[in-house]
Amino acid sequence: MFEITSRLDQQLTFLRELDKLKAVYRRTMVKPDNNRQENSAEHSWHIAVQAMILKEYAEEPVDICRVIKMLLIHDIVEIDAGDTFAFAESAELSGQEVKEMLAAERLFGLLPEEQAQELKVLWLEFEQVETPDARFAKAMDCLLPVIQNMESEGGTWAKYQVARSQVLKRNRHLEDLAPKLWTYVLGQIDLSVRNGWLQDG
Amino acid sequence: MFEITSRLDQQLTFLRELDKLKAVYRRTMVKPDNNRQENSAEHSWHIAVQAMILKEYAEEPVDICRVIKMLLIHDIVEIDAGDTFAFAESAELSGQEVKEMLAAERLFGLLPEEQAQELKVLWLEFEQVETPDARFAKAMDCLLPVIQNMESEGGTWAKYQVARSQVLKRNRHLEDLAPKLWTYVLGQIDLSVRNGWLQDG
Repeated sequence: MFEITSRLDQQLTFLRELDKLKAVYRRTMVKPDNNRQENSAEHSWHIAVQAMILKEYAEEPVDICRVIKMLLIHDIVEIDAGDTFAFAESAELSGQEVKEMLAAERLFGLLPEEQAQELKVLWLEFEQVETPDARFAKAMDCLLPVIQNMESEGGTWAKYQVARSQVLKRNRHLEDLAPKLWTYVLGQIDLSVRNGWLQDG
Repeated sequence: MFEITSRLDQQLTFLRELDKLKAVYRRTMVKPDNNRQENSAEHSWHIAVQAMILKEYAEEPVDICRVIKMLLIHDIVEIDAGDTFAFAESAELSGQEVKEMLAAERLFGLLPEEQAQELKVLWLEFEQVETPDARFAKAMDCLLPVIQNMESEGGTWAKYQVARSQVLKRNRHLEDLAPKLWTYVLGQIDLSVRNGWLQDG
C-alpha cells in the first residue's frame, strides 16, 4: 500500500506541476479572446488535434498515437526553461538547450523512474527530429503558427519582421514527409510576401 | 488537385475554428497565473496528459490512444454550446444536450465527411460513458478538478457550496474501473469535508 501511495503521489505531483504550463506565454495571439497571448498548454492541445486531423498527409508511416503523445509533452520543459520565439536571435537562444535538458531532468524526474525515463526519451526524440514520428510532430508544431499568422495579417511574422527564408527553414520537415502540406505552406508564404507580412529575403 | 485542396481547406477551417475553445472559460482557476479562470483548451491538454500518466490504474483494458483522442475532442462542442458547471442546477442544464448535439453537427461537420463522422462517433461514445475507454476518459475529466480544488482550499466546491454526495456521484466511474484512484478520491473528499471545503451532505 505504501509503495502504491508513494507512486501515485509522485504522479500527482507531476500533474499538479503541469498547471504552470498554462502560465507560459508565447508570442502568438489568440484571436477570439481579444488578442491575448497564447499559452503553451492550449498550444499543445491545438497541435495534438491538428496531428489527428492531418495525419493522412504523412507520406511515410507515422504512429499517430506516439506523435500525439510527443506533442502533448513537448513543451513541458518550458515550465522551467521558458518559451523562446521561433525566430529568436541566437543571443536569446544561448544556453537554452542546457536549460531545457535540466528542465526535462527535473520535471519528468518528478514521476516514478520508468515513466520519467519514457517521457525523457520521447521528448528527446521530438527534439532531435530524426524519426518520421518526430518529424511529423515537429511539422505540426511549426505549421499551426503559419495558419494562425495568416489569420492575423502576418501576426508574429509582421510584428517581428521575419523573412521568407526563416519560415521556409522552419517548415522544411514538411517537404519530404508531407509534400501536400509543404505546397500549402509555400503558397501561404508567397501570399504573405506579396501582402508585406513577410520580408522578401 | 481541386479535391485535395478542397479537402485540406475543410480541415484547416476546422483547425482555425478550434482557436475559439481557448476563449471558453470554466469555473476552475489556474493557480500559477494569478487565479484567472481555466479555459477548455488548456483543460483538455491537462487531462490528456493525465490519462497518459495514470493509465496503469485502469483495471479493465483501455486503449489509451482512443482515450487521449476522446479527451482532446470532448469539449470542442463548447465552442457553440458553452461550458456548464459540473454541479450546475438543472435549470442551467436545460436544453444543454440539444445545444451540444447541434454543436457537434456544426463543428465536426466542418471536416470532410468521414472525419466528421469519426469524431462525432468518438464524442458520442465519450458522452454516453458506456465503454471502458469512455469511462476512463470521463474519470480523467472528473478527477483533475478534484486535484485542482484540493490545491485551492476547496476551489469551486467551496465557492459554490458543493456537497460530498455530488462529488462522489461525479467520480463514480472510478469505483470499478480504477479502484486505487477511487480510494484516493474518497480520502480527498473526507479531508475536504473536515476542512469545511465540501458540505457534508
